[in-house]
Amino acid sequence: MNAPAALPQLMPDVQTRAVPPELLQALQTRFGPQCSTALAVREQHGRDESAFTTVPPPAAVVFAESTRDVADALQLASRYRVPVIPFGVGSSLEGHLLAVQGGISIDVSRMNQVLAIQAEDLTVTVQPGVTRKQLNEAVRSSGLFFPIDPGADASIGGMSATRASGTNAVRYGTMRENVLGLEVVTASGEVIRTGTRARKSSAGYDLTRLLVGSEGTLGVITEITLRLYPLPEAISAAVCSFPSIEAAVRTTIQVIQLGIPIARVELVDAGTVRMVNAHARLTLREEPLLLMEFHGSPAAVKEQAEAVQEIADEHGAQAFEWATTPEERTRLWTARHNAYFAAIQSRPGCRAISTDTCVPISRLADCLLDSVAEADASGLPYFLVGHVGDGNFHFGYLIMPDDPAERATAERLNHALVARALRLEGTCSGEHGVGLHKMGFLLAEAGPGAVAMMRTIKQALDPHNIMNPGKIFSM
Amino acid sequence: MNAPAALPQLMPDVQTRAVPPELLQALQTRFGPQCSTALAVREQHGRDESAFTTVPPPAAVVFAESTRDVADALQLASRYRVPVIPFGVGSSLEGHLLAVQGGISIDVSRMNQVLAIQAEDLTVTVQPGVTRKQLNEAVRSSGLFFPIDPGADASIGGMSATRASGTNAVRYGTMRENVLGLEVVTASGEVIRTGTRARKSSAGYDLTRLLVGSEGTLGVITEITLRLYPLPEAISAAVCSFPSIEAAVRTTIQVIQLGIPIARVELVDAGTVRMVNAHARLTLREEPLLLMEFHGSPAAVKEQAEAVQEIADEHGAQAFEWATTPEERTRLWTARHNAYFAAIQSRPGCRAISTDTCVPISRLADCLLDSVAEADASGLPYFLVGHVGDGNFHFGYLIMPDDPAERATAERLNHALVARALRLEGTCSGEHGVGLHKMGFLLAEAGPGAVAMMRTIKQALDPHNIMNPGKIFSM
Repeated sequence: MNAPAALPQLMPDVQTRAVPPELLQALQTRFGPQCSTALAVREQHGRDESAFTTVPPPAAVVFAESTRDVADALQLASRYRVPVIPFGVGSSLEGHLLAVQGGISIDVSRMNQVLAIQAEDLTVTVQPGVTRKQLNEAVRSSGLFFPIDPGADASIGGMSATRASGTNAVRYGTMRENVLGLEVVTASGEVIRTGTRARKSSAGYDLTRLLVGSEGTLGVITEITLRLYPLPEAISAAVCSFPSIEAAVRTTIQVIQLGIPIARVELVDAGTVRMVNAHARLTLREEPLLLMEFHGSPAAVKEQAEAVQEIADEHGAQAFEWATTPEERTRLWTARHNAYFAAIQSRPGCRAISTDTCVPISRLADCLLDSVAEADASGLPYFLVGHVGDGNFHFGYLIMPDDPAERATAERLNHALVARALRLEGTCSGEHGVGLHKMGFLLAEAGPGAVAMMRTIKQALDPHNIMNPGKIFSM
Repeated sequence: MNAPAALPQLMPDVQTRAVPPELLQALQTRFGPQCSTALAVREQHGRDESAFTTVPPPAAVVFAESTRDVADALQLASRYRVPVIPFGVGSSLEGHLLAVQGGISIDVSRMNQVLAIQAEDLTVTVQPGVTRKQLNEAVRSSGLFFPIDPGADASIGGMSATRASGTNAVRYGTMRENVLGLEVVTASGEVIRTGTRARKSSAGYDLTRLLVGSEGTLGVITEITLRLYPLPEAISAAVCSFPSIEAAVRTTIQVIQLGIPIARVELVDAGTVRMVNAHARLTLREEPLLLMEFHGSPAAVKEQAEAVQEIADEHGAQAFEWATTPEERTRLWTARHNAYFAAIQSRPGCRAISTDTCVPISRLADCLLDSVAEADASGLPYFLVGHVGDGNFHFGYLIMPDDPAERATAERLNHALVARALRLEGTCSGEHGVGLHKMGFLLAEAGPGAVAMMRTIKQALDPHNIMNPGKIFSM
């Protein structure tokens, strides 16, 4: 681990490359009404949920409806050496969608078919524009579900591209573990397939895992085969409030160290509970909470829950309340998923600068408590939620975008937090990706040698640097 | 999926590059007695457990004792553009260690320290020469274990390089899921680190997963950080015999489809049971068997076992016997792990040509039963074992190495089996890797576009093609 680099720039380094009118003409000819140059459309595709100041939007948006569309758009872009930025639903948090080097956006949201549910193999094949909620609707009647659940109703293509996870990762893993295979259009417009539907394979380089998390810099994902899981026979959810964040965290650490197969264990701090209560009209106790869920047979769920309750009691848990009906459970998890939006609404006009550190479980208390103290001392409003079973948590510093002092404070807190996480052998990004915002942190985390290896791979696979350039590392 | 290419060559395409005397001199100077050019040592490092005819051995063997040693050896090899083949314990099955383009072997077996057991994080950091049994001895007193268990007592470096798995993968995953981070010496002799000790990360390209399974073609692994698991509170093992392979396989398929978290479920056919009985002095019923193991709390283990027993009964299971003591369990699993060696000994002088297909679970019966019928019709002796919970199984065709007709028969059977597995959306290699033997199959499975992408990555990261050249794909 090296010392973190200088503070990441808040205004990204914009070096727009010219988009020749011939390319726009060729796109219009090939795509007709599927290609838009309307300013409102372009602006919608040139931003995401991050707090970055807007940069000039892409020159055009192609609404792809098939792999052929994507391949044709990429072949044209490649011919004119113009950047291409894939777009799902626009919910990324790290500036992934900003056209910092200009170019065109390829929107895959119309590629939203669930292509095949292979229930007997616990797999499904989808187009990239399918969202996680849509997928779960589609597979529910087969008695199956897909566990990966970032806060937003993100697209499966975007979730694959950022190696997303969410609340169930502690038990079911992340996109890394749950993508079996891909269809991808490469920078030259060639269509390739990676992986098979087999659960495991040692056949050659793991291109699937190289592309998962590559943030659109190596190709456009046009098809994804995923693992599914049988809906648990029994599910129990519980809310447990604690006298302190530390008590909640120490409970979590012990649950993980004992290998209890908890399905979800989410921390919400007292301030964030207040925001969630206000937003979702809930009456959760406004104290540090763990939201938990247990999956399995009725007996297994009971056994797990009793073991966890005992640990929580030893850490001074003040209430352990069950959400017994499916409706209560849904309300609880929807509130958790909407914490980000609840927080944004708590300060009208604000934007959130999200942190995303993840540390080894034994370091979680050290990493979290010092960072809470720093955030409290700063006076900046924030929310705090965490997939604490994974050692991953998010501060969202709520800044007014036009206030440079608040931005600087948020960046200072983020910087100190990342430096702490790296010292504790963790990562700067548990699940959001690097995008623009964490490029400096990646260099500090991985070191120049590993980042140089990433760059070498990028140069080899995308020699004209047209695939979402300027993300992950400068290029 | 394309049609499988022509039969893989049994005699690999040997194109030995000259090893200049200056390099040998420089290695002797730098490494002294750590560098050997004795024929017996070289020959031992120029072969593996595969049935390939021996090719000329490497020109020298460097016994590395540190990362610095590996880096220095690679810098010298890079300067002279001479191939380097990493060597662990020599247990690979696909010709990985054969010096088909000449060069030198780097033996890492002396780098066998368990560097750090981070019990509170369920992680461990080891040098590449540590073997799986050694690792488990080292962590047992912490109440932890490492589940990945290929048949041989392989090195962790070799297991990482081939993306190995074994009998526990159905529950705990493979090396893909269990390697958190690596230290690697690249082709130019630079030392890089990938990953962190955090359980998950979205920070940049997944170099860890690119290197796991790269079979020594992208760098030499010099340190590995792995996930560990708490020793289960309760473990039960059982042997269940069936009237047919089909009944055993259909039982397995149903167990997986129901999501029962079985820890191990291994098929052994009647003929292989006979070999194992003879080798290990056991008295297992000489019928198709499932060897199973259940991990969890006592109640969870009981519940899982009862559910599986009920399914087995519905498929006509003839006996369901428990191995209740740790000694009985160890005897059973040792016998299973030694099935390969039991089979080899059943036909003095023979070598095994191993198959390694893995298919989606619903296709397992189709894939396996047709292949058994073909093997029986051929008259060639074989063994058959399978990690059937993953859809992965191995025939070992027992051929006399000097009998070209037997070789041709084995290759014909293997070819038909792989073609069938690919038609069923599976893979040619579940866990052994590609090496020399499955290069043609990889091309058929992944298609020329994906293999071209692998080659492009290889060329970019190893421009002089010195890292274990001629493996995975021709180069």
